[in-house]
Amino acid sequence: MLIVHKYGGTSVGSLERIESVASRVAKAKKEGNDIVVVVSAMSGETNKLTDYAKHFSDNPSKREMDMLLSSGEIVTASLLAIALKEMGLDAIAMTGGQAGIKTDTFHTYARIESIDPTAMQNELNSGKVVIVAGFQGVNSNGEITTLGRGGSDLSAVAIAGALKADACEIYSDVDGIYTTDPRIEPKAKKMDYISYEEMLELASLGAKVLQNRSVELAKKLKVKIVAKSSFSNAEGTVIGKESGKMEAVLVSGIALDRNQARVSLRDVSDRPGIAAEIFTKLAEEQINVDMIIQNASSDGLTSLGFTVTQSELAKAKEIIENFDHDIGGKSFDNDICKVSIVGVGMKSHSGVAATAFSALAKENINIEMISTSEIKVSMIIAEKYAELAVRTLHSIYELDK
Amino acid sequence: MLIVHKYGGTSVGSLERIESVASRVAKAKKEGNDIVVVVSAMSGETNKLTDYAKHFSDNPSKREMDMLLSSGEIVTASLLAIALKEMGLDAIAMTGGQAGIKTDTFHTYARIESIDPTAMQNELNSGKVVIVAGFQGVNSNGEITTLGRGGSDLSAVAIAGALKADACEIYSDVDGIYTTDPRIEPKAKKMDYISYEEMLELASLGAKVLQNRSVELAKKLKVKIVAKSSFSNAEGTVIGKESGKMEAVLVSGIALDRNQARVSLRDVSDRPGIAAEIFTKLAEEQINVDMIIQNASSDGLTSLGFTVTQSELAKAKEIIENFDHDIGGKSFDNDICKVSIVGVGMKSHSGVAATAFSALAKENINIEMISTSEIKVSMIIAEKYAELAVRTLHSIYELDK
Repeated sequence: MLIVHKYGGTSVGSLERIESVASRVAKAKKEGNDIVVVVSAMSGETNKLTDYAKHFSDNPSKREMDMLLSSGEIVTASLLAIALKEMGLDAIAMTGGQAGIKTDTFHTYARIESIDPTAMQNELNSGKVVIVAGFQGVNSNGEITTLGRGGSDLSAVAIAGALKADACEIYSDVDGIYTTDPRIEPKAKKMDYISYEEMLELASLGAKVLQNRSVELAKKLKVKIVAKSSFSNAEGTVIGKESGKMEAVLVSGIALDRNQARVSLRDVSDRPGIAAEIFTKLAEEQINVDMIIQNASSDGLTSLGFTVTQSELAKAKEIIENFDHDIGGKSFDNDICKVSIVGVGMKSHSGVAATAFSALAKENINIEMISTSEIKVSMIIAEKYAELAVRTLHSIYELDK
Repeated sequence: MLIVHKYGGTSVGSLERIESVASRVAKAKKEGNDIVVVVSAMSGETNKLTDYAKHFSDNPSKREMDMLLSSGEIVTASLLAIALKEMGLDAIAMTGGQAGIKTDTFHTYARIESIDPTAMQNELNSGKVVIVAGFQGVNSNGEITTLGRGGSDLSAVAIAGALKADACEIYSDVDGIYTTDPRIEPKAKKMDYISYEEMLELASLGAKVLQNRSVELAKKLKVKIVAKSSFSNAEGTVIGKESGKMEAVLVSGIALDRNQARVSLRDVSDRPGIAAEIFTKLAEEQINVDMIIQNASSDGLTSLGFTVTQSELAKAKEIIENFDHDIGGKSFDNDICKVSIVGVGMKSHSGVAATAFSALAKENINIEMISTSEIKVSMIIAEKYAELAVRTLHSIYELDK
């Protein structure tokens, strides 16, 4: 089997941790696998280098930031190769560029355009463990680029895709994806398997494990991800394509997003294009709108509600003020949260939403907004009910069983 | 003018020092010059990374050591570019490879094979300050190589040669080359000018400033070096080609080398090839022999003396023991030193050596071995007289005037 391992900053956060990673890689290699390892910078390094740059400039040149930050991953890759060779394995460290990772020219948030796996494949063929500095590539001018937050995950998934690897194991300090946040519901269970689609909807549950860009890329490239802990030998969670038997499971997980704020507009003139105008303005200011609800018009007036992230509420407010002549009343609410029920099984079962509504009603939790997709039901509720709602839903769908 | 600046580890040893370097570069640029800056790693960084590697292996893979250590210079180059841009200058940081530095494939002590200055020249033409990570290049396989100790000086001189720069200013924490070590003779004077040949012979006086490999390369490429301090605005010492007026100066400097040990062999069989046999064995063991003196043969026996570095004396001793049947008596002496008088003016003046001998005799300093070249007279004396000899010679040639 050809397996790509990816180790995050905490997993390579000290020389001892790197040694432990080397042992894990050596074991996998000795079991007869071909191994490519993608590494992050040692935890703290990227922040240290960023602080250095900020000493000189509040807005440091992005091209040079990429050159600066890319060094962190190169250090880890070199050290891991040295450690593996000392263990008697043949290993070779590569920068992103040497590994054939070509990106576009947008420094600090470049996108991978292509990967030429020839160099990696040649080294694998000669029996070497290939270690690649994550988070980076080169653009068409030969300049070093970085891929933004979670970039090493992207490197790993893209490399796994290019090499047609059997799996991409993403190691962190968390041992998988749970049915909900265990800090809220201690009965939360680690999932064995989850589909890409569910993982994308459950982003908040996987936030510490891997980012949505990587899941999207894995889905596109058909890369099987395994989220595992580098601090234990526990089985992780497989993130892969939807399978028939998954539909037997009604709900996979319950996600909570506290970072939501609600804007409610009443008595909005029902002239054509007013909603479009508001949302165009918000988009121009880079404000992401999540849920939108518009009530049916009555006597020429309508009501409109939507949610934004809390940090963008102030900006949204400013924009709304400019529509005063068209809006009768408005309110802004920070004390809300979004609870989501996710599961591919929903598609073939009706009544999932109804079960949720009645369970929450029984706890006197009022649902203020609702949106549904094929595999998700999201509800906005008062923030004070967040934990109670999560536990109630986790229990009603028997996720603790 | 096109000027290459090179800043060593102490000169860029902190964020404040990098800021100070940025000001110096900005000033030179604003005076209308084109500037290329070659930087070392921040002082301590290379040692830190080497210690990291040693944690994993006593003999870490050289290819990966190069990749690891090269990151230090890349960090400094990126930070300096960020600092310069913040000052309103246009600047671009380059790795050794991006700057077109091609080396052979000998990791950790690679030699520069060629420099393609096109990329640097293009950026200079567009008005940018070009900042190059020193100490590194790439080989024909695209692998990162480093140039060994003093490598950033070599990078700077080679770049100055490739760009046909008007000067290569080497900045350190020392403000130039002195007529002798000021710790021994406080009256030592900073030289304004010294020839490549003299600098090579006075290596010990320039050891903290730049290494002989760089001086040799500068001589070959006809690069004018200026050794300056980055901690002051003092004029430095120019190291350049011999000029007519230099011959008026009889002696340029007095160098002292304490790291010498002497081997004296008496009653050596005068059979053909015995000396050759001894020195071949020494060479096979990588022992560098410095001075060699063989006395005229009398009654079939001869005497042979030579010097080695102190650290190699034990190994030399071992080899000599194997020649017992051919050697009547032998002694080994660690308590000696080598004092050298250097000056291109010697070539056209006789009597330089005689002056030295009589001055030392007047101080009761016995000269145990002598060797001379066109521009140098070296003498082995007892180590206890080292300082007295240096001061005596410094004074007799009026170097304090």
